[in-house]
Amino acid sequence: MAKSYETEHPVKAFGLAATDSSGHLSPFKFSRRATGDDDVQFRVLYCGICHTDLHQLKNEFGVTPYPIVPGHEIVGVVTEVGKKVEKVKVGDGVGVGCMVGSCRSCESCHEDLENYCPKVIPTYAAPYHDGTITYGGYSDIMVADEHFIVRIPDNMPLDAAAPLLCAGITTYSPMRYFGLDKPGMHIGVVGLGGLGHVAVKFAKAFGCKVTVISTSFSKKDEALSHLGADSFLISKDANEMQGAMGTMDGIIDTVSAHHALMPLIGLLKAHGNLIMLGAPNKPLELPVLPLLTGRKMISGSGIGGMKETQEMIDFAAKHNIKADIELISANYVNTALERLTIADVKYRFVIDVANTLKQS
Amino acid sequence: MAKSYETEHPVKAFGLAATDSSGHLSPFKFSRRATGDDDVQFRVLYCGICHTDLHQLKNEFGVTPYPIVPGHEIVGVVTEVGKKVEKVKVGDGVGVGCMVGSCRSCESCHEDLENYCPKVIPTYAAPYHDGTITYGGYSDIMVADEHFIVRIPDNMPLDAAAPLLCAGITTYSPMRYFGLDKPGMHIGVVGLGGLGHVAVKFAKAFGCKVTVISTSFSKKDEALSHLGADSFLISKDANEMQGAMGTMDGIIDTVSAHHALMPLIGLLKAHGNLIMLGAPNKPLELPVLPLLTGRKMISGSGIGGMKETQEMIDFAAKHNIKADIELISANYVNTALERLTIADVKYRFVIDVANTLKQS
Repeated sequence: MAKSYETEHPVKAFGLAATDSSGHLSPFKFSRRATGDDDVQFRVLYCGICHTDLHQLKNEFGVTPYPIVPGHEIVGVVTEVGKKVEKVKVGDGVGVGCMVGSCRSCESCHEDLENYCPKVIPTYAAPYHDGTITYGGYSDIMVADEHFIVRIPDNMPLDAAAPLLCAGITTYSPMRYFGLDKPGMHIGVVGLGGLGHVAVKFAKAFGCKVTVISTSFSKKDEALSHLGADSFLISKDANEMQGAMGTMDGIIDTVSAHHALMPLIGLLKAHGNLIMLGAPNKPLELPVLPLLTGRKMISGSGIGGMKETQEMIDFAAKHNIKADIELISANYVNTALERLTIADVKYRFVIDVANTLKQS
Repeated sequence: MAKSYETEHPVKAFGLAATDSSGHLSPFKFSRRATGDDDVQFRVLYCGICHTDLHQLKNEFGVTPYPIVPGHEIVGVVTEVGKKVEKVKVGDGVGVGCMVGSCRSCESCHEDLENYCPKVIPTYAAPYHDGTITYGGYSDIMVADEHFIVRIPDNMPLDAAAPLLCAGITTYSPMRYFGLDKPGMHIGVVGLGGLGHVAVKFAKAFGCKVTVISTSFSKKDEALSHLGADSFLISKDANEMQGAMGTMDGIIDTVSAHHALMPLIGLLKAHGNLIMLGAPNKPLELPVLPLLTGRKMISGSGIGGMKETQEMIDFAAKHNIKADIELISANYVNTALERLTIADVKYRFVIDVANTLKQS
């Protein structure tokens, strides 16, 4: 007998799921666990659409367990808390990002780096501690251990806060860890999408000079006048790139498509750091000599730990940093995914879950 | 009229030079500048043969100005000092490594990182401040600005000290800069040649656990019993490599040949650092996802500044670290270069210059 998604847990839930690698999302009845002692249950108000959702929906990593309910940029209002919960109370604005569990006992977990725990449990499409599969935020209700709950500051609009739970921490964390957060530093941001546009905002809030590096001239005005970048480079313009050689302390590279690293390494000053946040599906070409001659480095980073995620959202609230979003209704989500495929969004789709996700 | 190498400077000198990309070395009469106020003149006793010499002799970088006198692991005894020289006196043991000049005014120079100065002047085959071409240590006499002179501690054998001026600082500097110098850390060393064997010694002196990673099983005994490594991995043995996944804080990769980075990245713990010291002549394949999921980095480093080179040689003297050398006579140098091509040396050829380089 097939497993009943509606009855494996006691709390009824409703969301949008794909059942095969077409990735097409359809209404899906399932269930959530009862609120445990350490759990926080919340009504989902908004959920951002991350590019990773697209990869997972289409099984591009080859491990998607269908049906899949995506969404790991989830915000809402607390509806119930377990008896041991201290962090939040009913009525508070909260969020869940990319993970809902980890081992809590390894070196990474002890260092508040649950994101690097070998047993980290992603927010959707992964086995939870109880053996059931996790479902994400394209749904009406969410429940998570309070350790993986972020408090959303009162002055922050919940819809524009949602993407910060993935795109925000993914850019904030490496800038902090690798020390690219000092006033006066010159930071390059490659790619002006969901990650890139918040990277520009955080770097500006740190007091850095920011140069956006893009293949598309059409983004120049947007980068300079709207996002507040200090300068703009067309990566295909050899003269422009040559003029900027050796000027950057660090570069945040958000591009997932195959691309050349050599010109970016060239933009770095000695001891500079090229931080990769996108994961091209084939290896890139790494020229080694330019690393040696300038003691440069290429590093990677993936989201951030829970403590730092809270710090990031508090920092964003203090500095009035929000994601730029296009709020969509739940019945537009398949169209939104198609548009995301061709990068036709400024800069993040957010689903207006509470107002538009209805069981018809 | 052809330039006269013998008369462009007042001090007669004799060495070994290649005149074309065959790289064959022959006797060469040339000249050195008079000892300036800031200069130190010394009689060359020993000079190491670095793999870079081979590349330059054969014009593999495409910029060799023939005739070329190679050698940048040079030690000797001071014969004359300029009137402003304070660092050393006549009779002292001294050395010159890979550089003899820099701008002394840029950010890198002010940070004691002359090696990353855009105007750094290599010890041979480069234009010096006065416009003449620099000649290296395969020669009987050397003169250099005292800033680029290293004092060799009295208790250090001069022949075994020579290779430290390149191979030593090249491995010591990145371990210090990137923090891979803490007792108890687990450091991998890839490739057991001129660089690799001193990397093992420095890492052991820092109190680290050291694993040598090699393609050649024949190096196992040598690595463990002679060099004091704690363990040994055959890089082609998938089982051995799998068993060591995620165990290393950092890896010193000394290999100049094309090789796979993926297995090495896998050996690193989260937040680990793969430091590249060799420069393959083609780009390597860089898998990006493993960097993201473990916040790992790949970095490069090239020699070290003068202040740190002195620190390195003092540290080596204190901890009885010497390069393992095969001392050769000057008339064996072409054979030695052939053997170096096939890595047939444990671990560095050093030319016994003072005793064997004679004008016949």
